[in-house]
Amino acid sequence: MEQRISLITLGVADVRRARTFYERLGWRGQEAEETVFFQAGAMALILWGRAKLADDSGVKDGGIKDGSAGNGGFDGVVLAHNVRSRAEVDAVLAEAAGAGGEITQPARETFYGGYAGCFRDQDGHVWEIAWNPSFTLAPDGSIVLPDFG
Amino acid sequence: MEQRISLITLGVADVRRARTFYERLGWRGQEAEETVFFQAGAMALILWGRAKLADDSGVKDGGIKDGSAGNGGFDGVVLAHNVRSRAEVDAVLAEAAGAGGEITQPARETFYGGYAGCFRDQDGHVWEIAWNPSFTLAPDGSIVLPDFG
Repeated sequence: MEQRISLITLGVADVRRARTFYERLGWRGQEAEETVFFQAGAMALILWGRAKLADDSGVKDGGIKDGSAGNGGFDGVVLAHNVRSRAEVDAVLAEAAGAGGEITQPARETFYGGYAGCFRDQDGHVWEIAWNPSFTLAPDGSIVLPDFG
Repeated sequence: MEQRISLITLGVADVRRARTFYERLGWRGQEAEETVFFQAGAMALILWGRAKLADDSGVKDGGIKDGSAGNGGFDGVVLAHNVRSRAEVDAVLAEAAGAGGEITQPARETFYGGYAGCFRDQDGHVWEIAWNPSFTLAPDGSIVLPDFG
């Protein structure tokens, strides 16, 4: 697993309200399918419905968060690590499972035409490992969002 | 507020265990004061005790997470946006408050010789706005961790 983060997705109750907040801070993004994408330096910040995010990651939301592992809680935040091939998705997920992570979402075809799966670390932090042909991954690992227009 | 993220800090129950997990994934970091810093592309991923992270951010941990705003819950994750001056810390926090964010930690001198404060957005996601003279902020906003040795 390369040492980098491609996306941070924040689960939100109301995508429009959340987008407005970040726009008031001066951020400019693009929206597709009730998801807002902000280019943020070499990575991207995404706003997406919290329930969809939890469901997509294979985790339950709404549990008690007591800081202990395995409590079924959900951060409301998912980190994504994008890779260059389907095989690399499988390889990183296997590596994470071998290291003591829990596979919460086995790798599968995604609705956006990619291939991805999720694990969470021993503190419950969720990572998605994704191959997404729509997002350019530069040689240095930077993500560049396409123009959605 | 520039459109970038400098640091992601994951709150963990046991720093040693968490560091071991990420090292098994091939990540290499540096540790100082029970905090682990991984350079991750143009930003950094940090592992820090969850209780310390919540306390430092001015938020309560352990609440029920139901996805609604203002429930006092804590993601267990803090995003940081590093800036180039103390004045810029004050300016971004004021901007966030004006946009509808909640200041959870007013700007103050920090134990590491910097100046920082925190806000959370309407979904409870916490941001630290920090001036940290130890971390180089490149013209493009990239963070480069120093050699702790």
